[in-house]
Amino acid sequence: MLPGPTKIGVLQSAPEGFLSAEDIQSLKSGRRGFLRASLLAAGAAITAPVVAIDGAAEAEGDPAILELPPWTRSAGQGVAARPYGAPSIHEASKVRRDLPGMSSYAGNSVSFTPLQNLFGIITPAGLHYERHHQGWHDIDPARHRLMINGSAPGMLKAPRVYTLADLLRLPSVSRIHFLECGGNTGMEWAGATMPTVQYTHGMLSCSEFTGVPLRVLLEASGVDFRKARYVLAEGADGASLTRTIPMELVESDEVFVAYGQNGEMLRPENGYPLRLVVPGVQGVSWVKWLRRIEVGDQPYATREETLHYVDLMPDGKLRQYSSVQECKSVITAPSGGQKLLETGFYNITGLAWSGRGKVERVDVSVDGGKNWNTARLESPVLDKALTRFNFDWIWDGKPAVLQSRAIDSTGYVQPGISELRAVRGTQSIYHNNAIQSWQVQASGEVKNVQLG
Amino acid sequence: MLPGPTKIGVLQSAPEGFLSAEDIQSLKSGRRGFLRASLLAAGAAITAPVVAIDGAAEAEGDPAILELPPWTRSAGQGVAARPYGAPSIHEASKVRRDLPGMSSYAGNSVSFTPLQNLFGIITPAGLHYERHHQGWHDIDPARHRLMINGSAPGMLKAPRVYTLADLLRLPSVSRIHFLECGGNTGMEWAGATMPTVQYTHGMLSCSEFTGVPLRVLLEASGVDFRKARYVLAEGADGASLTRTIPMELVESDEVFVAYGQNGEMLRPENGYPLRLVVPGVQGVSWVKWLRRIEVGDQPYATREETLHYVDLMPDGKLRQYSSVQECKSVITAPSGGQKLLETGFYNITGLAWSGRGKVERVDVSVDGGKNWNTARLESPVLDKALTRFNFDWIWDGKPAVLQSRAIDSTGYVQPGISELRAVRGTQSIYHNNAIQSWQVQASGEVKNVQLG
Repeated sequence: MLPGPTKIGVLQSAPEGFLSAEDIQSLKSGRRGFLRASLLAAGAAITAPVVAIDGAAEAEGDPAILELPPWTRSAGQGVAARPYGAPSIHEASKVRRDLPGMSSYAGNSVSFTPLQNLFGIITPAGLHYERHHQGWHDIDPARHRLMINGSAPGMLKAPRVYTLADLLRLPSVSRIHFLECGGNTGMEWAGATMPTVQYTHGMLSCSEFTGVPLRVLLEASGVDFRKARYVLAEGADGASLTRTIPMELVESDEVFVAYGQNGEMLRPENGYPLRLVVPGVQGVSWVKWLRRIEVGDQPYATREETLHYVDLMPDGKLRQYSSVQECKSVITAPSGGQKLLETGFYNITGLAWSGRGKVERVDVSVDGGKNWNTARLESPVLDKALTRFNFDWIWDGKPAVLQSRAIDSTGYVQPGISELRAVRGTQSIYHNNAIQSWQVQASGEVKNVQLG
Repeated sequence: MLPGPTKIGVLQSAPEGFLSAEDIQSLKSGRRGFLRASLLAAGAAITAPVVAIDGAAEAEGDPAILELPPWTRSAGQGVAARPYGAPSIHEASKVRRDLPGMSSYAGNSVSFTPLQNLFGIITPAGLHYERHHQGWHDIDPARHRLMINGSAPGMLKAPRVYTLADLLRLPSVSRIHFLECGGNTGMEWAGATMPTVQYTHGMLSCSEFTGVPLRVLLEASGVDFRKARYVLAEGADGASLTRTIPMELVESDEVFVAYGQNGEMLRPENGYPLRLVVPGVQGVSWVKWLRRIEVGDQPYATREETLHYVDLMPDGKLRQYSSVQECKSVITAPSGGQKLLETGFYNITGLAWSGRGKVERVDVSVDGGKNWNTARLESPVLDKALTRFNFDWIWDGKPAVLQSRAIDSTGYVQPGISELRAVRGTQSIYHNNAIQSWQVQASGEVKNVQLG
C-alpha cells in the first residue's frame, strides 16, 4: 500500500481554539480576517509544535527512546481507579464545540462533532453532536412514559402507555445508522466558508442504536393502517418538539424507539431514556426524550415542519417535508485549518453517507475535480450509515484542491455546489449536500474554498 | 413479532453490589451462602424496587403522566455544559467491576464489562474490560515510540522508529472486532458458578479499531518474509509484556497497529496511544502500550506463553500457543442474579462470537438443551466480531433453563461443559467456551448452573 521508500508527510492539527460570538458574527458578515487571526492565536497557544521529520524518526539520538519513560519504570494504576473510563488527559482538546451567540436563549444551542479527530464510522457518545431547541435534561427514567394514541376515533383500538421497563422487555433490534441535522453545512449555502470540518460538517454522527420497532407498538394498540398513514412523534422537553413521519417508514420496520446507543443507554443530551430512530431522515425527526406517538390520517404541519426545516427555493416557494438526507461525503483529513508541514505521503480520509441506501463508491480528486480516482471503502458498508473511505496521496508541495464525491446505491451522484445552487438558489439553510473543497496552499495551509 | 395481547414480563435487575475480597474467597472455596447473602443485601440497598404490572402501564391514574414533569416545565441546559458527554446520573451503577483480593499487587488487576446492561455489539470505551499485569498509565504520546527491529541480522533491511504522528499519516484500516481475555469464564472450569454474566463472561468487549496494517510497517523495513516467520510484540508498561504472533496473521493483513477505538483515540487503560489488534486471538496478544515489534524465525516462548496462558490437559501436559478464541455465546438477559417478577413475554438476548470467522447461527433452548430453536441475528454479522441475537420467549412461571449455542462459519458447534471437560479436564484456567446455563426458578430468580 505504502510505496517503498516514500517519505511520510507531517500534518499539523487544526488550531484548537473555540469560536467566539464575535467570530460567528464576522463569519456571517463575511469579515474573515478577525476570525483567522483569532483562531491562529488560539492555535499557537494550545497546539504543541509538530517537528518536521524526514520520513519516520530514526532511533539514533531520539530522546524518547534513549531515556526509559516513567510508565516503564513505575507501577501503574489498578482497574478500580476508574469503573467508568475517560479519554486520556492528552486528548482534552478533542471535544464538541458550540456556536456561541447563535441565539439569545442558551437552550437553543448546537454543538459540533470533531470529525477531524475521529476514525472509522462510530462516533463516541461523548462526542455526538447536539442540537437542542430548549436545552437538555437528565430525565428520571422511572417517571418517563411513552404514550401511543390516535388523532381521532377509529385510528387505533387501544391507546397504551409504556414505561421504560416495559419497552426493555419487548422484542428489540440493533442497527448502525448515521444521524445528520438538516441544517448541517447550512452556513455554506450563501457563501460563508467555515474554518474547519467540525464547523462545516460536524452536525453528523453515527451510532449503533437499539430499541423496539415502532410497528410492534402500533400493532399492540391495534392501529388501522388503512386509515392511519402518518405518525406524530413528540418530545418531553420544554419545546415539546413534534414531527410528522410517513407510515411507510414504520411499516418497512425501519423506524424504532431506541433506548440504547453504542451499547449503553442513550446519553441525556441525546434523548435519554427514549429517542425515535428514523434512518436516513434528518435529525429533527429523531425526536429526543420521546413521550408520545400519535397516529393520524394526514401530515401535522407542525411548527418544525412549516416555520423551520423548509427549503426556500429560487421562485420564493417553500419546499416542505424534504426530510431525507441526500448522498453526501466529506474529507475529514487533511481538512480546513490543518497544515501540511512536509511534502510526502498523506492518508486522505473521510466519510460518506446516504439517506437512501448504501454508499456505492467514493471518488477523490486532488486537483479540484479535473481528475477523479476511486477511494478504498472500509468495511462494514451499511445501509444509511457512515462509510469510511481512505485514499493514498503524495503531496509534491504544489497547491492542490482536495474533494470527495459519493455515489449511493440508487445511482445518485453527490452534486457540486454550483449544480446544487442552480436548482436550489442561495436562500436555503437546510439540506446542503454539495461536494466540499479543501484548498492546500503551497505553504501547506488548508483552507475551505467553494469550487464547482 | 409480539403475539397480540401477550402480557409483558417484568425483569428485576441483578443486585448492584460489588463483590468483596471475602466473596471471591468464598466463591473459590465453594462457600456460596455468604456471597449470596452479601449480594442480596447490597442489591436491596441500591436497586430500586420494580413494580409488577399487568402488561403495559395504563394511562389512567399513572402519576407519571398526570403530573407534568420538571423537564417539560423548565428550560434545559445548553450544549456548552458538557463538551465531552457522560452517562445519565441514573445509570451510575452500570460500571465495570473488579475482583478485589485477586492479587496482592494492585496493578495485577481485572475489571469486567457489565454485559447484562449492554445492547447491540459495540462496547462503550468507558466500559471496555481491563486486564493489567502491571496497571495502566496515561502515556504522553509525544514521548512514545514504536520500534521495528529484527532478532538477528538478515531478518530485515532497516530497523525503524515511528512516532505517533508518523503512524497517523500512514494508510489506515478500520474494523469492528471482539476482544476476549483467554481467561474469560475461567473460574467455571472447576465448577465455581459466578453469580452474574458480568463475572462469568465480562472479560469480553467489541470495538471498531483503526490503525496501520502491520504488514505496511514490516514492508517499509524490508522484512525478509521467508526468514522472519514470527513477530514479537512488546508493551511499554512496567510488565514489558511480550507475545509471539505467527507471521501468517500479519501477511493476511488481519493484524494492525491501532490508535483509534470506537472513533476516538484509544483509552489509557486500553493501550493509549498504540495497541496491537490481532483479530480472533485472545486478549493478551493485543499488546497494549505497544512499543516494539521484533521479527524472528521462531516462537519466543516468553513468560506469558509458557508460565501463563497455557492449558493444563488431563494427562498433565501443557497445551501452548492455543491462542484463537473458539466459537462461544452467552445469554446476557435474563441472566444470573436477575429476577423475573411476572409471567409473560421476555426478549431473550445475548452475544455470539468466533475467533475463526463469522457466527453462522445461534440456537436457544429454554429447557436445558432438550429442544433448540434458531434465534434472530442482528446485523451486521461481521468476521471475528460480536454478533447480537434475540429470541422471543413467554415464561409460564415454571422452572426453565436458558442456554445458547453458537455455530460459526467453519461449522464448529459450541460444546457443552461436559463435552469440553471430557477433552480438557478440569485443571485449565483458559479457553473455556462452554455453553452457559441460566436456571430460572419458579420464584423467578435466575441462577448460574452447570448442565450438559
